[in-house]
Order: sequence, then structure tokens, then C-alpha cells
Amino acid sequence: MIAKSMVDYVNGSSVIRAMFEEGNKMAKMYGAENVYDFSLGNPSVEPPKAVGEAMRYILQEEKPNLVHGYMNNAGYEDVRDAIANSINQKFDTSFNANNILMTVGAAGGLNVILKTLLDPEDEVVVFAPFFGEYANYIKNYGGVMKVAKTTEDFLPDPELTKEAITEKTKAVIINNPNNPTGVVYSEEDIIKLADVLRECEKEYGHAIYLIGDEPYRELVYDGVTVPYLTKYYEDTIVGYSYSKSLSLPGERIGYLVIPNEVDDYENVFQAAGIANRILGFVNAPSLLQRTVARCLDAEVDIDTYNKNRELLYTELTALGFECIKPQGAFYMFVKAPGGDDKEFVKKAKEFNLLLVPGSTFHGPGYVRIAYCVDYDMIKRALPAFEKLAKSYS
Amino acid sequence: MIAKSMVDYVNGSSVIRAMFEEGNKMAKMYGAENVYDFSLGNPSVEPPKAVGEAMRYILQEEKPNLVHGYMNNAGYEDVRDAIANSINQKFDTSFNANNILMTVGAAGGLNVILKTLLDPEDEVVVFAPFFGEYANYIKNYGGVMKVAKTTEDFLPDPELTKEAITEKTKAVIINNPNNPTGVVYSEEDIIKLADVLRECEKEYGHAIYLIGDEPYRELVYDGVTVPYLTKYYEDTIVGYSYSKSLSLPGERIGYLVIPNEVDDYENVFQAAGIANRILGFVNAPSLLQRTVARCLDAEVDIDTYNKNRELLYTELTALGFECIKPQGAFYMFVKAPGGDDKEFVKKAKEFNLLLVPGSTFHGPGYVRIAYCVDYDMIKRALPAFEKLAKSYS
Repeated sequence: MIAKSMVDYVNGSSVIRAMFEEGNKMAKMYGAENVYDFSLGNPSVEPPKAVGEAMRYILQEEKPNLVHGYMNNAGYEDVRDAIANSINQKFDTSFNANNILMTVGAAGGLNVILKTLLDPEDEVVVFAPFFGEYANYIKNYGGVMKVAKTTEDFLPDPELTKEAITEKTKAVIINNPNNPTGVVYSEEDIIKLADVLRECEKEYGHAIYLIGDEPYRELVYDGVTVPYLTKYYEDTIVGYSYSKSLSLPGERIGYLVIPNEVDDYENVFQAAGIANRILGFVNAPSLLQRTVARCLDAEVDIDTYNKNRELLYTELTALGFECIKPQGAFYMFVKAPGGDDKEFVKKAKEFNLLLVPGSTFHGPGYVRIAYCVDYDMIKRALPAFEKLAKSYS
Repeated sequence: MIAKSMVDYVNGSSVIRAMFEEGNKMAKMYGAENVYDFSLGNPSVEPPKAVGEAMRYILQEEKPNLVHGYMNNAGYEDVRDAIANSINQKFDTSFNANNILMTVGAAGGLNVILKTLLDPEDEVVVFAPFFGEYANYIKNYGGVMKVAKTTEDFLPDPELTKEAITEKTKAVIINNPNNPTGVVYSEEDIIKLADVLRECEKEYGHAIYLIGDEPYRELVYDGVTVPYLTKYYEDTIVGYSYSKSLSLPGERIGYLVIPNEVDDYENVFQAAGIANRILGFVNAPSLLQRTVARCLDAEVDIDTYNKNRELLYTELTALGFECIKPQGAFYMFVKAPGGDDKEFVKKAKEFNLLLVPGSTFHGPGYVRIAYCVDYDMIKRALPAFEKLAKSYS
């Protein structure tokens, strides 16, 4: 008696649940320390001290009815002001409170903006491989997902992008740094993408919104920088989350940036506030709004992720595995020897290694390894990776 | 370029915004203390001390990665256990963690359960007058809202309810205590409603889910009790929120109760967890989950609301206004003299009184007065109400 649209989700989810239950069973059989779980994107690094300090300060000093009460659906004006100023300082932009809409994480923000923009049958382009939830978010509002292929290095390719865009394209989602590949799109990549989008806007005579999903913005290595999208393309909306930068994924706090330059700005900003309300978010959690406004320059200890990355990349490539060295996020996208990612994931499980098949991300032939884990677990897992490699040679 | 479905929302919302802006203008013209705003359901009573204490304890004693990290989409198992036990103790039920799904407030919970249940064109019955957002929540999932008329005292009437139910009815929403009327449905009312629903289930050969929306459960006066719905009708799902009972509306924390007895329980519970994820909530805010689990017996100071209620009811009826004495929530639903609620709201504004027309709640001919305000503001407003009354005599 559940909705027909939910039946497939329940069936699909049973498969994942079975996988988790098997993982739990393995932990019981072999001991938790002998099972190597690289499947989840749950930050292992603690939130910076500033977060707890800010919370304690707010609870002590601010009025409870302010801290825990209703505010404008878009969020507290002083919080949105503070965030706008911080973005302006960092990226030389000129936003104010009316460009910021506080959201229940980036997932909430993406749902809000898709509800705001999509009429049924409108198309949304995503770049393979991509975070699987995009497919669900687009479907929630009757949208149709179109997958653009990318280069061998998982970068948007002008020709392939153009192929995916049609008259019905309302939006394009990019995820930079990328989950699951760890790739970071450079300024050159963004400029090329913006050119394609502008060309298509002209060709089809209507706006094509570029939606940036940027929860991993601060998680970059080797001095790489992530271009701020709004500077390259007018019709850009940026979704951000503090889940990774402050290790607060359970708290559901993020924001949308909706610049004045965006086509139909007034309606988009107002409709997004209404979508936030009627989808049942109402507003982003209030204490967390006030907290992040006091932690604008705080960051988790990225060195920890970097150490994990170096160890895992060095060791896996030494074992013969093929992989682009990730420059951002905390994932590696490794080629499945033999080409069958599901088979490879199964094989890995024989050595107590839990990985996620690339098919989940529309990237078959690869597996995702999340390295937001304990360094020691990686070290303990290396002999298992070695056995896994040998089983393929 | 926003979605067509959002255009009406934006237009409607502009009217409300204009009203707010006028309120702000009035406050500037006459001084904030001379404008009497009875329009908002924003709790005026502070959260109980236990809330701040619990938060400080958790920040001090629990591991940050536990407190702020991802958990099962349904919520922390220990939190769901604690809430189930608390409900069992209070209402003699027998729930466990697998009957509780933590949600982003009651608004989030209602969206989750409607996404879970509704196929396009499925009908959902609501009782007039009702919280206007129900219309939007139902529309979000392609459902069709059917309004059941109620008795003169705003209670469900078996015959009128039956008239609203058809073969396509998938769910029925009740809000007890009621916004905007302040009426509380008694055990007898619920038994009669349950009988009608059971009869219709038989007639149409499928489950009709009763969804209880209960954010005002603890806000009752004169020793009135609110029956716990799951004890009267098998196919019941209860949505709860701590927004009013703990004065935490900005924090977005609540839960759904999905009993084992509900038709298709396993699928409903699992699909609701998935809906929570794919709608972008992902999970209820984590620190708040852990906080409410430590405040299960805490309550805001209801005496404050009761004093407001007594003063306002006594004075308004003495002035000749007609109104059922509210037994719950913090609203009074007052008959508009002359019968035109919009006209009455306009007139009231001339005396700096901000009220909400009953039409907003599908209850024309009445206005809603929210008394979750300062007692002193009510006292200051009394001469204005007197002038308003005189202007009609």
C-alpha cells in the first residue's frame, strides 16, 4: 500500500541493506578490526574546536527564543549577511543576505532549487560518474535526468556536454570536487563548460541554470584551488554544505547562493524560500545556522585525509591498481581489474574489504574507495589489498 | 523561468509579504509597543531549562563524531528507543525503535509520510478549518485534497466525513489539538471517526491511513487529555514535533510513529526512511535528536499560555465577540462580526491589531488570534479590541 513510485526504492534499498548486514556479520565473525570498510563517506576527522566553542557561547549568551525560534524561511538575516561577506572576502564576489538561502544541508538545498526550477519533463544534465542521489532528487520533481559522458579523466568535455543538452534542458549539475572520482575541475574546465552553456542558452533561447554542488570545496590537496562558479557563468546557483568542511553531516546545515545575475532572480530567490517551507524543511536548523556563522574560517584537519590519500594511492598503484590521483574530496575511483566492478567488489569482500561498485555512480568498471577512515585501518587493510591484487594476476 | 507550479505560490506569498511589510511599517509609524501582532504561531515561552542543560552535557560528554555525524536515516537507535519507551509509559502502548522515525519537525514528517504513501491522484481528506500547509504538502506528491466539513463546534462528523471519503482516499489527516480553532477532539470523537474509517476501509477494500499531526499535544488546558490515536485505529501514523512542547520551532526536530499494526508496515517504515533521505532531509538534525532524548519529560510553562487564554477569552466575549473557548494549542478562532473575515481583518488593522483571516485555513467568516504572545501585549491590545467591537455595533 505504499506509493508505486516508492516500490523500486524499497527493493533497491534492500540490496544495500543486505550488504550492510553482511558487513555487520563479517565484523562479528572476524572481529571489527579485521573488516576494512571503505564504503561510507562519513567524515572520520572531528569537527574543529571552534564548533563546540561557538555552540557553548550561543547557548550561554544569546536569547533562547532567538536561538531556537522561527526566523525568515531563508534563514537569520545576520547569519546570511555573515556568510555572504565571508564568500565575498574569499572569492572576490559581491553577495549580500538576499543571495543566501540557508538549507538543510546540500541535499536539502538541491531539492529546494530543483523544486523551484523544474516543470515535469524538464531535463537536468549530470556528468558521469555522479553522486547517485541526483537521480532521485531530479525524479522528485518530475524532471528527466540526462547523463553527459566525460573524458577519460572524468572531466566535462565540450562536445559530449553539448550532446546531452537539448531544448528541454533546464539545469546542469556539477559536483566539484567530485564524488566519486576525487577529480577537481580546473578554471579552464569551468570556462569551457560556461562557453558551452552560453552557446546552448543562445541556441535554445532560454536560461540553463548551472547548479554547483560543493560540499567538498575545502577538501583539496596539492595546493589545488576550486574555481568559484558564479564568476564564470551568470546563471549559476551554488549549493554548499558544512557536512565535510566542519564534519557536521548529521546536523544538516548548508546554503544556496542565488546571485542577482541569475535569470529571473527575484522569482527564483522567493520561490526557493517557499519551496524550503512547503517541502517541510521550513528553515535550516536554527542553532546550527548561528553556529556556522561563528565558524566561517574554521576547517577540519585536512592533513589527516591527505595522509590517508598518499598512503592509499602509493600502495594501491604499487600493487598495480589503476587510479587517477584524487585532488579533492576523500574518494579514490579505482579501475576494476577485469572490468567488472560488481565482480571486483565481491572478490574484495572475500578479503574483508568493503568497497562500492562504480555502477552505483553511473561509472561501471570502477570502484569507489572512501578514505575518510582511520589511518591505522588503511595500514591494516594493505595486506588484504595485496591478496586482492594477487588474485587477479 | 521558475517552475509553473511555483508561480502561484510566489504570487500568493507576495500578498502575505505585503501584509508583513505593512506590519513593519505600522510598527515604525506607531511604535512597536502600539502594534498588536496576533498573527504568528511562534512560541513566546522559553524552552525549558532542561534543553540547554542537555545540549551542554552532550557537547561536553559525548564524542563529537557521534553527536554531529551521520547515523541511520531513521535516526539514532538509542534516541528512537528512548522515545518509544517514553510514549509507551505515557500512553500504555508497546512501540520500539522500529516504530519511530526521527524527522525534520512535523512538517518534514508529514512530507515524508505523504511521499511514502501517495500515488498521483490519490485523495487525502482534511477537516475544515485546517492548517493551510496541508494543501501544499499533499500537492507536492500529486495528491488531491478533499475537505470534510465539520460540526458547528469544528468537530469531525461521521456523516460529513463519510461524504468526503471515496474509493481513491489513501489517507486522512487530523490535527489534534487543532490549529486554528484550539478545539481538542475527545475520545468519543476519535472512536466515531475510527468507526467511519473502518467502515470505509471495508467498503473500498483497501487501507485508509489516519495521519495524526500532533505538535500541540501537550498544550492543553482545563485538565483535558488528547487521546493517543494508535489505540483507536490500526492504520494510524502519528506525526509529532517538539516545536511547541519544548519551544524549539527553529530547530526542526520531530518524529513519526509507524506502528507494527499499520497495513504494509515493513514497506511503510522502510519507504519512509528512504523518503526522508531522497527528499533531502537525510536525517533529523543530530544534536537535536540526542537533546530531545534527554528531555522526554520536560515541558514549557503552559500556565503562561493559559493565562493569556483566560484573559483574552474573558475580555473578547465580554465585548460581544463569539468564540469557542479553546482547550488546546494557542489559538482562538473568533467569529467575524458581519461574516466577512477579510473585511474584519482589514478593520482590525485600523486599530493596529494584526489577525489572520479564517479563509487562510478554509474557515471563512472567522479570524485566528494567536495568543502565544506577551501577556502585557494582550493587556495593551484590549482597548483596541474594544474600539474594534464598537465599530461594529
